[in-house]
Amino acid sequence: MVQFNDIAKEITNELSTTLNSIDNTEAENLLAAIKKADKVFFVGVGRVLLSLQAIAKRLAHLGIKTYVVGQITEPAITEKDLLIVGSGSGESAFPLIIAKKAKQFNATVAHIGANPNSSMREHSDLFVRIPVSTKLQLPGEIPSVQPMTSLFEQSLLLLGDTLALTIVREQTIDMHSLWEYHANLE
Amino acid sequence: MVQFNDIAKEITNELSTTLNSIDNTEAENLLAAIKKADKVFFVGVGRVLLSLQAIAKRLAHLGIKTYVVGQITEPAITEKDLLIVGSGSGESAFPLIIAKKAKQFNATVAHIGANPNSSMREHSDLFVRIPVSTKLQLPGEIPSVQPMTSLFEQSLLLLGDTLALTIVREQTIDMHSLWEYHANLE
Amino acid sequence: MVQFNDIAKEITNELSTTLNSIDNTEAENLLAAIKKADKVFFVGVGRVLLSLQAIAKRLAHLGIKTYVVGQITEPAITEKDLLIVGSGSGESAFPLIIAKKAKQFNATVAHIGANPNSSMREHSDLFVRIPVSTKLQLPGEIPSVQPMTSLFEQSLLLLGDTLALTIVREQTIDMHSLWEYHANLE
Amino acid sequence: MVQFNDIAKEITNELSTTLNSIDNTEAENLLAAIKKADKVFFVGVGRVLLSLQAIAKRLAHLGIKTYVVGQITEPAITEKDLLIVGSGSGESAFPLIIAKKAKQFNATVAHIGANPNSSMREHSDLFVRIPVSTKLQLPGEIPSVQPMTSLFEQSLLLLGDTLALTIVREQTIDMHSLWEYHANLE
Repeated sequence: MVQFNDIAKEITNELSTTLNSIDNTEAENLLAAIKKADKVFFVGVGRVLLSLQAIAKRLAHLGIKTYVVGQITEPAITEKDLLIVGSGSGESAFPLIIAKKAKQFNATVAHIGANPNSSMREHSDLFVRIPVSTKLQLPGEIPSVQPMTSLFEQSLLLLGDTLALTIVREQTIDMHSLWEYHANLE
Repeated sequence: MVQFNDIAKEITNELSTTLNSIDNTEAENLLAAIKKADKVFFVGVGRVLLSLQAIAKRLAHLGIKTYVVGQITEPAITEKDLLIVGSGSGESAFPLIIAKKAKQFNATVAHIGANPNSSMREHSDLFVRIPVSTKLQLPGEIPSVQPMTSLFEQSLLLLGDTLALTIVREQTIDMHSLWEYHANLE
Repeated sequence: MVQFNDIAKEITNELSTTLNSIDNTEAENLLAAIKKADKVFFVGVGRVLLSLQAIAKRLAHLGIKTYVVGQITEPAITEKDLLIVGSGSGESAFPLIIAKKAKQFNATVAHIGANPNSSMREHSDLFVRIPVSTKLQLPGEIPSVQPMTSLFEQSLLLLGDTLALTIVREQTIDMHSLWEYHANLE
Repeated sequence: MVQFNDIAKEITNELSTTLNSIDNTEAENLLAAIKKADKVFFVGVGRVLLSLQAIAKRLAHLGIKTYVVGQITEPAITEKDLLIVGSGSGESAFPLIIAKKAKQFNATVAHIGANPNSSMREHSDLFVRIPVSTKLQLPGEIPSVQPMTSLFEQSLLLLGDTLALTIVREQTIDMHSLWEYHANLE
């Protein structure tokens, strides 16, 4: 009989492979852009948006000014800011519009996606590929046993949390002190 | 036959009466607390929360630092900050908990509600009464033809927008300039 | 000295005038479309979205199946459904995309806006004009003392709540019974 | 020099260990409760809430009726329903209140947490332990290199997605067909 732990192992194995297949230089360029930016905006839809919100929340705890496009109090984007677009296909309508607008304000745009040749390409300055499988069957794609685009959404969260852990180590942040900047009303 | 305009008139009449029954001094004390605060936090549930979010958004356009409790990136509250609680009954569990916590951090707490003698009383420094009808049948209550607590939620929005208009006038803000600080990615 | 009640009166007067200027037939056609629809979807941005969410919440209490585009669990739209777009200008990018998609699935699209000749026109089956002032200075526009598009957002909420009150009366709903269908965990 | 892939590996290793340490029977009892329930509600705060929202969204695609406490249109909970509480410490104020209320309506309450002896214990029927480290230093805890409670939030998402994959396999769902029930307006 197949048990919970066995099925979980299939998923964690997929994640290990996927994260290990992300290009180090692409990830480090994204990290540099985050550290350089005045403010970091995030845009995506569905479960991708949820992963981006989790990243925004963790990075905010590390002192980075983060905003999710559409949140209640959202400042204007400027040329000193970074927009991070999460979109596996690179073809979602809403993120594309927002990326186009961000470029009009001369912001830097980073795209995290699965397809390096999408419509997002002409609106973005940076690209980080999470090489999960697409309809295009590109070389190097990681197959998934999971429904829909779960592997992309999970990998996106872990990509963000890996950058967060890198920042913690570089800044030799005392992990206990992080709770000081955390929302204290929850 | 009763037409849309006739029914709308019943609602706008209720609103005129309700807004006119709010105590000027209570409203002005709330405005003073907003202007004095470093950051202004908002808490409520349901449609009350939606009215508070609309107020937070408009005040943010006027340069006030506003946050909704539970939003993705929420800073810690301090003794220089104001928490505005919206709760008609003053008995909603979540706002009560948050108000109690805010007082532990020595923040100022303002309660906007219908019942001046609720559990919120011991956790708040300021009270603004929107005198819509309650189960307690207090003196001076405005009856409503509308279902549930619609009149409270509508009045709350208009109370906030009246404070916003007052700030605009006091600061002789150029209304066209407001769009500069507005989210530009939407 | 100008007091809170005086400024509030300016706002409630604007609202009375605006709601009274909405065309009865347009409002009644929208109501008929809501009652006919299997499911009712709402789309908008910023404070307009907040007004739409409040309407969705109240109509849900009256037994109508309502959904906000982008919410966590959102069903597919079909030809039996209605999409209500809130957009004063009728030019917001995101609502336009969603309206276009809804038409592809043969859903009915209703637009509530200030400008009857916007890009939304070709993607909508119904239009309700809230005749607040626009950059186009159309005949019959109601001027506003308020910043930005507050008058539109407030009027939108009251338009929805007027439809809700109409439904309550038509169905001779017992108002106390409404709380039975209300979220009971808050 | 430490590279992105190396740091990511530390995180994916933690996740593999944690998911493998979840008790199969506890996970399977939760799955049985989900399948038995009429409606499944979710409550949590912060990043835990984001993981729960992602789970709610995926399970909805599999035909399960899921709701997040506080969402715009939320039905009443009944004795046929399940409330899933995500709380590492089992001491967060808001989830505790909601769990208590759910028990008053005779709903089943499942707690996913790190501490088996928390205040949540008396309000829940089921418990799934994600054995990440707590302040209590319980036996069997998995240490983490990550800041704050990232490991709990990530593991929670993967726990939910493992249950989703199990459902897909049990029902021999055609994975391509899932997109039919997916929101089509995004």
